Amino acid sequence: MAMEDMVDVCEEMDKAGFWSVECWGGATFDSCIRFLNEDPWERLRTFRKLMPNSRLQMLLRGQNLLGYRHYEDMVVDKFVEKAAENGMDVFRVFDALNDPRNLEHAMTAVKNVGKHAQGTICYTTSPLHDVEGYIKLAGRLLDMGADSIALKDMAALLKPQPAYDIVRGIKEAYGEDTQINVHCHSTTGVTMVTLMKAIEAGADVVDTAISSMSLGPGHNPTESLVEMLEGTGYTTDLDMDNLVTIRDHFRTIRPKYAEFESKTLVNTDIFMSQIPGGMLSNMENQLKAQGAGDRVDEVMREVPVVRKDAGYPPLVTPSSQIVGTQAVFNVLMGRYKVMTAEFADLMLGYYGECPGERNPELIYQAAEQTKKEEITVRPADLLEPEWDELVEQAKGLDGFNGTDEDVLTNALFPSVAPGFFTTRGEGPKNVGKTPEQLQREAEQASGAANAIREPIRYKVTVGGRAQTVQVEPA
Amino acid sequence: MAMEDMVDVCEEMDKAGFWSVECWGGATFDSCIRFLNEDPWERLRTFRKLMPNSRLQMLLRGQNLLGYRHYEDMVVDKFVEKAAENGMDVFRVFDALNDPRNLEHAMTAVKNVGKHAQGTICYTTSPLHDVEGYIKLAGRLLDMGADSIALKDMAALLKPQPAYDIVRGIKEAYGEDTQINVHCHSTTGVTMVTLMKAIEAGADVVDTAISSMSLGPGHNPTESLVEMLEGTGYTTDLDMDNLVTIRDHFRTIRPKYAEFESKTLVNTDIFMSQIPGGMLSNMENQLKAQGAGDRVDEVMREVPVVRKDAGYPPLVTPSSQIVGTQAVFNVLMGRYKVMTAEFADLMLGYYGECPGERNPELIYQAAEQTKKEEITVRPADLLEPEWDELVEQAKGLDGFNGTDEDVLTNALFPSVAPGFFTTRGEGPKNVGKTPEQLQREAEQASGAANAIREPIRYKVTVGGRAQTVQVEPA
Repeated sequence: MAMEDMVDVCEEMDKAGFWSVECWGGATFDSCIRFLNEDPWERLRTFRKLMPNSRLQMLLRGQNLLGYRHYEDMVVDKFVEKAAENGMDVFRVFDALNDPRNLEHAMTAVKNVGKHAQGTICYTTSPLHDVEGYIKLAGRLLDMGADSIALKDMAALLKPQPAYDIVRGIKEAYGEDTQINVHCHSTTGVTMVTLMKAIEAGADVVDTAISSMSLGPGHNPTESLVEMLEGTGYTTDLDMDNLVTIRDHFRTIRPKYAEFESKTLVNTDIFMSQIPGGMLSNMENQLKAQGAGDRVDEVMREVPVVRKDAGYPPLVTPSSQIVGTQAVFNVLMGRYKVMTAEFADLMLGYYGECPGERNPELIYQAAEQTKKEEITVRPADLLEPEWDELVEQAKGLDGFNGTDEDVLTNALFPSVAPGFFTTRGEGPKNVGKTPEQLQREAEQASGAANAIREPIRYKVTVGGRAQTVQVEPA
Repeated sequence: MAMEDMVDVCEEMDKAGFWSVECWGGATFDSCIRFLNEDPWERLRTFRKLMPNSRLQMLLRGQNLLGYRHYEDMVVDKFVEKAAENGMDVFRVFDALNDPRNLEHAMTAVKNVGKHAQGTICYTTSPLHDVEGYIKLAGRLLDMGADSIALKDMAALLKPQPAYDIVRGIKEAYGEDTQINVHCHSTTGVTMVTLMKAIEAGADVVDTAISSMSLGPGHNPTESLVEMLEGTGYTTDLDMDNLVTIRDHFRTIRPKYAEFESKTLVNTDIFMSQIPGGMLSNMENQLKAQGAGDRVDEVMREVPVVRKDAGYPPLVTPSSQIVGTQAVFNVLMGRYKVMTAEFADLMLGYYGECPGERNPELIYQAAEQTKKEEITVRPADLLEPEWDELVEQAKGLDGFNGTDEDVLTNALFPSVAPGFFTTRGEGPKNVGKTPEQLQREAEQASGAANAIREPIRYKVTVGGRAQTVQVEPA
């Protein structure tokens, strides 16, 4: 969403009484430079200025930061330092494989700049994932100095009872004063109840979205959560008048982005398939591109096989894409006839430790194919210092502004940042559309604008002579 | 919804394992004859035939049956008898004012034909409505022989804690084996949690809608409820494969009725205004018709005043319309300068007993205006036997088929039935539209079909001579 569609409501959000406002990181950084021609660091500074009384929160992909590879520790330090300098308060740090070693350095970096380090558990279900395991993982994150624990349910898989058991278990194992934030999407239609049971178990903070931006693949509605708690003994500190103002603002903004909306309002298939919606549509597109759009069911049956061979990783970026793409290859070319480079790296430990044992034959095949050997150390331990080189790379780019922030932007998105640097001067580009624009496009797409369906009279000039003529489909 | 859009899925629904299938009564009867040119009795017989293993359920407005006035007891007997004969099993009987005297005869009639009589509590909030009162009301319904109790939350006002307290209270007061059905709409976004707490309190049956027809002003998604309960010790007997088949059926049907859909996905305003969405849009239309569309806020502030003067009736058909319309009159013409006939009847007791004391001055004014006196007896006690007269009326109508069912159809909807009888022979009329139809209409409405926006070449015949010419906006 373009910054200009948010600035007017920031003051109200700052007054509403949220524990934090998640407003940066995750995919927003990428979107800023890829689609909106906005400097993400400028966006962060603007939020900081407009919400002086709020904790600003971001999602940080551990050693991957906001990118898709592991970065050397000094880059992680630099990123966290600059994010804090520009106004970030709460860093929700996670790793797709729940490998604590991939979180450790980022968490330490956050502590070093005196900010809030939130250790994150990615929730998934598999024969190897159970309540006990999640409680243990929380313990390791707390040992690393986590100021709070986030239970992150990116696929709306977290049901009320396990939510209750995990939150209660963490509180009982590590103390009732252990802060727990619960993050659920609402896709499956069960997670509003999940938040209620998590609250009953002692959860301190739960994530919601204002109602006019809620539901579907998004979050549960904030105002509903406030009302839900009446009489339970639990309360929020939220001001309903502020919430209504915020709601009305986004109610007018949301239609501008209709073309980017998911059509899914509620869908429980994931409980059976384990495949997040985003991952499914990726696989469908890959199959269509190969003219095999009809084989999606085979691929969905193949995913559990590939996931098991990989030691049951949670399915979240990037593991969801890696497992999904390999499943597609297996169906199209025969099982493991072709192994993607990413899947080979996953099998060899270059993304970190998976919950379960990985298929030894496939580890061997991956090593053969890539001429790399299996590793058991923290992947980033193998990386050479790269900061100075990243600075040099950035210096070579047109439009580079000389700041460490720009160096980091280019380090995270080397294929996008150079283009952004050259167009940055043109200023933000709002990709939202007015309802009128959307309707006109629909008409033109349907060819209606050029169609004459019934006889109609026109003033036509032929060879200088004007005549009124009737035109109809020839 | 047209019957033809449902027949194909009935067999699956019959196998899914629902406690009952609500498929008739309420507004469906009216819609059949008003819009679909379908005989509602034929529809009931069809459901009966297609779902031989299911309990068929209907909503019955007590002494009003499915109409908008009180009917004499023998008409109530006849209706219940015919509904049972045609296949109805479970009668959910309610009264807009929660006046048990308006339920009693209908409940007895259901018992007399050996069917399931479900006594209904309409849930609302007011200074006079509390958990204790609802528990007492349940007791009166059980004393009347109710086979089960329905807690009916037609406005999505029922929050988790009061739901828990009411269900628990009823179970503790009248026995754990007292069957309680909980019916919530999902408009406010809190009621999935309400169902969970009601289940924890011992509710036996909860109402849901298949996910592809769920949410918004509808009900909570069935599949989500099934998944929600995993690990809680509570289970449903529902078969997920059946549910998915049912979901996929309605997923293809729902778009046909898009033009009839509410735009509201989630809205918590009712917790503040107490005004159900349907009632609000009624009032807005009344105001617009008077060129006073800008005074809706005044009316919303007036509604609580009128509701208090009327003794705090629940706001549900018809009391919601009566209170809402009087509030509109008060704003447009001055408070109670003009009293509607319906509001006068409400004040004089002709709809039954209201929870609280009614404003004595307004009772006096109502009596003066209508030349009627205040009553305290059950309204239907004042009615003369009317069945024979209703038969005579029906006999006089073209297309009357001579059955008691037709007599009842005309008795319930005297302004619609005569027209329906004359067109019945033409068979059902599906008001659903294909996406193509909808798009074409949109184009035509926008005038696009007749527009030429850019130069375009046509074969044009002028005075017998065909020429190819270029046409552009003059």
